[in-house]
Amino acid sequence: MRPMILESIVTTINDDGSLNVSPMGPLITDDVARGFELRPFNTSTTFANLKARKQGVMHITDDVLLFAKSAIGRLDIAPPVRKAEKVIGQILTDACRWYEFDVVSIDDSSPRVILQCQTVFNGRQRDFWGFNRAKHAIIEAAILATRVSFLPREEISSQFVILETNVEKTGGDDEFAAMKLLKDFVDEAMKSQHQTD
Amino acid sequence: MRPMILESIVTTINDDGSLNVSPMGPLITDDVARGFELRPFNTSTTFANLKARKQGVMHITDDVLLFAKSAIGRLDIAPPVRKAEKVIGQILTDACRWYEFDVVSIDDSSPRVILQCQTVFNGRQRDFWGFNRAKHAIIEAAILATRVSFLPREEISSQFVILETNVEKTGGDDEFAAMKLLKDFVDEAMKSQHQTD
Repeated sequence: MRPMILESIVTTINDDGSLNVSPMGPLITDDVARGFELRPFNTSTTFANLKARKQGVMHITDDVLLFAKSAIGRLDIAPPVRKAEKVIGQILTDACRWYEFDVVSIDDSSPRVILQCQTVFNGRQRDFWGFNRAKHAIIEAAILATRVSFLPREEISSQFVILETNVEKTGGDDEFAAMKLLKDFVDEAMKSQHQTD
Repeated sequence: MRPMILESIVTTINDDGSLNVSPMGPLITDDVARGFELRPFNTSTTFANLKARKQGVMHITDDVLLFAKSAIGRLDIAPPVRKAEKVIGQILTDACRWYEFDVVSIDDSSPRVILQCQTVFNGRQRDFWGFNRAKHAIIEAAILATRVSFLPREEISSQFVILETNVEKTGGDDEFAAMKLLKDFVDEAMKSQHQTD
């Protein structure tokens, strides 16, 4: 079976006990309730936390405003959480489903570290909305935003035009807010790049 | 609240008692368990059936192969179904959730007919997979495929390149199969257009 990549949100505990909230793309080969593989960059906070504590919580959610904010480091207000059941960690209370995991092996021989994760507890809180072109446009726009420093400007701008149209046609208030946030971030990043050109 | 568009699959009963399976984008303003608005073209089979029988079943599903096949009329094998609970209709047994509905009003003064639908029964069968770039790429590719006769060829080709990359990077077997089906359909349609140019 071909592995699939899920766009998820992972919470881990920082050195100082505070919460790190980060979009991650686990590889799912089998049943996610059994386990999955994470491939964070070796420079990421998520990796530092998972290396130190070997535990975290992976979430499936349709909350694209949370994806957008956490992708660009604008999570000014911490999302509501509660204590995990079986690991030292926190569950996002608005997520659709959550998977508490142990890191069972680490391969850090390349910049994209490979972490094998075993699900030790999981649960559901609510249904995923379903396919919505605007929600997905935000996922794509958030991915583009995190690559603004090295992708061609033309590619980002032309994709944003299409993604913005999808949000306008099919999105709700949260999707409009998320697109504005990402658009402003990308515009700002391009402007400061231009100044240093 | 801004209405959102859900990419769903609607089943209706044809004149001869057989099943029509069609991708539709209901507008959701409130709780989908209460109701929604459908806007089929006045030439569509879904509209003919809903005008005649005033009942159907709307499904939330992550089965993109079904979206792809039904969008381009290649549903060679009928998907598994069972009898609806409160309406004369059929539930897709593999769908995540289903909403049996009555059509309570019809405005057919324009080519996009407006049907107000009231949910009379709903249920869940399984969880939606979650965000996956490949699944969503299939939704976008299926929408492009249905517009192949009037969208600029350049626009379709350039978007397909991006969508195929997303499928290759993040998709499973079903997403690969769905992309091949849509790609072949679009290539064929473009070839026959070219021949008549």
